[in-house]
Amino acid sequence: MMLGAVEAGGTKFVCSVGDETGKIIERTQISTTIPKETMSKVIGFFKSYELQAIGVGSFGPININRESAGYGSITSTPKPGWQDYPIVKTLEKQFRIPIGFNTDVNAAALGEATHGAAKGLDSCLYITIGTGIGAGAIVQGKLLQGLTHPEMGHILVRRHPQDTYEGKCPYHKDCLEGLASGPAIEERWGAKGVDLVDRTEVWELQAYYIAQALMQFVLILSPKKIILGGGVMNQKQLFPSIYKYLKEFVADYVYLPELADYIVSPGLGDHSGITGSLMLAKQALQGNI
Amino acid sequence: MMLGAVEAGGTKFVCSVGDETGKIIERTQISTTIPKETMSKVIGFFKSYELQAIGVGSFGPININRESAGYGSITSTPKPGWQDYPIVKTLEKQFRIPIGFNTDVNAAALGEATHGAAKGLDSCLYITIGTGIGAGAIVQGKLLQGLTHPEMGHILVRRHPQDTYEGKCPYHKDCLEGLASGPAIEERWGAKGVDLVDRTEVWELQAYYIAQALMQFVLILSPKKIILGGGVMNQKQLFPSIYKYLKEFVADYVYLPELADYIVSPGLGDHSGITGSLMLAKQALQGNI
Repeated sequence: MMLGAVEAGGTKFVCSVGDETGKIIERTQISTTIPKETMSKVIGFFKSYELQAIGVGSFGPININRESAGYGSITSTPKPGWQDYPIVKTLEKQFRIPIGFNTDVNAAALGEATHGAAKGLDSCLYITIGTGIGAGAIVQGKLLQGLTHPEMGHILVRRHPQDTYEGKCPYHKDCLEGLASGPAIEERWGAKGVDLVDRTEVWELQAYYIAQALMQFVLILSPKKIILGGGVMNQKQLFPSIYKYLKEFVADYVYLPELADYIVSPGLGDHSGITGSLMLAKQALQGNI
Repeated sequence: MMLGAVEAGGTKFVCSVGDETGKIIERTQISTTIPKETMSKVIGFFKSYELQAIGVGSFGPININRESAGYGSITSTPKPGWQDYPIVKTLEKQFRIPIGFNTDVNAAALGEATHGAAKGLDSCLYITIGTGIGAGAIVQGKLLQGLTHPEMGHILVRRHPQDTYEGKCPYHKDCLEGLASGPAIEERWGAKGVDLVDRTEVWELQAYYIAQALMQFVLILSPKKIILGGGVMNQKQLFPSIYKYLKEFVADYVYLPELADYIVSPGLGDHSGITGSLMLAKQALQGNI
């Protein structure tokens, strides 16, 4: 089957054409400007293919409630023009094929569960730690959603006793994203993460907060694999410290597999989201949503 | 269909015979002593019925991994004789009918989602706050499980600045259960919760911790309904304070329904677990597990 995929981000839309095996045939990047401009380029790219379905993994928050009038739109965003923009309806009208739609991080979790580090598993958690923090998950083979999609980046963590930084989240100040996102690192330490590679204390503190989040995710979701992606996680020195703190927090209360196999980098590198969006297209075509 | 249900607890086993509509025809209670004694009474009770399946909602931790040799057993417990006890195999050998098996709290969530406060919803969270704290959930119509079942009672919370109680959890000291279970209330305040009804500060602190847990659950699971059961939640004055703190923590970051409709007492009263166990039997019979 010939499928389209869109990884819709706040700065760029990655569009691909591929198939149900995750193979990508063609790929392009489009800047995120105003919807009319960005979407007409997206449509232009897909026009030259005979697509059977398109999957969209989108920045959010988005409306994924199929019973509501606003299904398939981005809801609240400061990006000009995108507030309440009906991305699914726009594509449906143009192509008259099934459109899959979910969050970028749920798409990434799906990509990793079908072709990446969690291949073949019916359960995984994908977390991105970068400009923001977000996560998606597969539970018993299905994308994790309920009232709406998860917003895991904003869970509460316990402040490190020596950390006096107030936190960067405009809603919660010192939630996980407020204390551990890329911009929080930069504001706390006065330099970007990439320029702080040798400062051990930076990554120890970072690992302390990430491990707390993992403790919560393990106890609440019990995922079969945890995948840590995003720009901050390119600092591979984080992994051993995350394992150390997680062990300390869990305190042998629940069984965990060998952590180096359990908590890993994305198997698909930077392609988790776009591969997952292809799989969203496949699911939409099969009516499995 | 004629179904059996067991709500297996650390102090008593509640056994029922009923049907797929949740109707209970017969019911008995058996003390939890040693497995041989307790289980022979359970078997004796069910023997006089022509059952098609039995569902067991059990105290835990339990092994729910169907691919492992230990599937269907209680794993680690201090209760004499119950460690590694194969409860499913014992019933299968005796009755040669399908046996459903999950945690007591996942069973309660299933009961509430089929016949209780979350009736008709494909998503809910059931939390019990009593001697211990535990929770189960339905996600996209399925019981929440992955590597194993959730252990949500032990998530980390932020200590209230005025709370100097060290916490009662033998593993984590001041996790949610360590700070907010019935025994924690008793140890912190020197009296049982039922004798502290008029002490406002007791319930404010309690609501502060419960609301923090709900914040995490909402952001991670986005359940369509939250049901708060267990002995501590008989203190109905907790509800308004829980709503107040949850609103404060979420800070309008995610949309929540009217909290008095969203966060509620069990629709089935004390029967969530036994009704859910009947539904586990139904699912086992239908091969939907």
